[in-house]
Amino acid sequence: MKYFEDIRVGDTTELGRHTFGAEEIKAFARRFDPQLFHTDETAAERSHFGALCASGWHTAVAWMRLMVAHRRAAAEAARGRGEPVAAIGPALGLRDLQWLKPVYVGDTVAYKTEVIETRISNSRPGFGLMTIRSTGTNQNGEPVIKFESTTFVERRPEKT
Amino acid sequence: MKYFEDIRVGDTTELGRHTFGAEEIKAFARRFDPQLFHTDETAAERSHFGALCASGWHTAVAWMRLMVAHRRAAAEAARGRGEPVAAIGPALGLRDLQWLKPVYVGDTVAYKTEVIETRISNSRPGFGLMTIRSTGTNQNGEPVIKFESTTFVERRPEKT
Repeated sequence: MKYFEDIRVGDTTELGRHTFGAEEIKAFARRFDPQLFHTDETAAERSHFGALCASGWHTAVAWMRLMVAHRRAAAEAARGRGEPVAAIGPALGLRDLQWLKPVYVGDTVAYKTEVIETRISNSRPGFGLMTIRSTGTNQNGEPVIKFESTTFVERRPEKT
Repeated sequence: MKYFEDIRVGDTTELGRHTFGAEEIKAFARRFDPQLFHTDETAAERSHFGALCASGWHTAVAWMRLMVAHRRAAAEAARGRGEPVAAIGPALGLRDLQWLKPVYVGDTVAYKTEVIETRISNSRPGFGLMTIRSTGTNQNGEPVIKFESTTFVERRPEKT
């Protein structure tokens, strides 16, 4: 992670893509969101969705997985260049998560983030707060999920 | 589900409890949120959390699972009494999800919902929109997660 001071509103990051397979959709839903339109093809065809589709929570955690992988790769690359890696603190929460379209079997969702706000943390000295807007877009260019999240990011240590 | 007309702002529902075990916390995190403080006890002790704790997404999907089970049980009970069961449509999204405290190994979270807003749907005739505030509270009475979500609920069919 870059230090808080090096993050600019408008910075964008491509996190990567995830393709939602039928078995994965059903396995996630059986465990965490066992509604029939997420677990059973025939029932899904008769539902308002018209076909099997992923739990909205599944679409969200696929983002988390890609975000963790992205941060890890970026940290390793920075260490490889001999650069310091800023710590990233816990997420405070999400604002305005919208599930805009169903994610059907075989859909590929590309996740992207944009920094929309940065501010100093009053509660945690040495950290700033970064708010990003994340969007998942399917292979037809249609947004399927979007939300904003706020995370602590370490500030550049002062030279002494 | 009750028909939209029978839902009142202030209605509360106890969804049940979930205890977060170490193996379950690590299995969820390895799959969806592989940060070390969710997957490795020793690394977690050295982190800002101080001990292994559940992914925030895990705390959220535990709510979803209890919500689905609650709705299913309520629908079966209504059918058993010979009452109609209103359809519930897709969730539109979440507002203001906050992770307020870490959920550590062995914590038991009780989830509760309260209806905070109801309004007629302009886009889907025959349905209303219900917004609920959901809260998860640990065994010490501390809220660990809260968020608001909006869902379509079927209106009572007009008598003809």
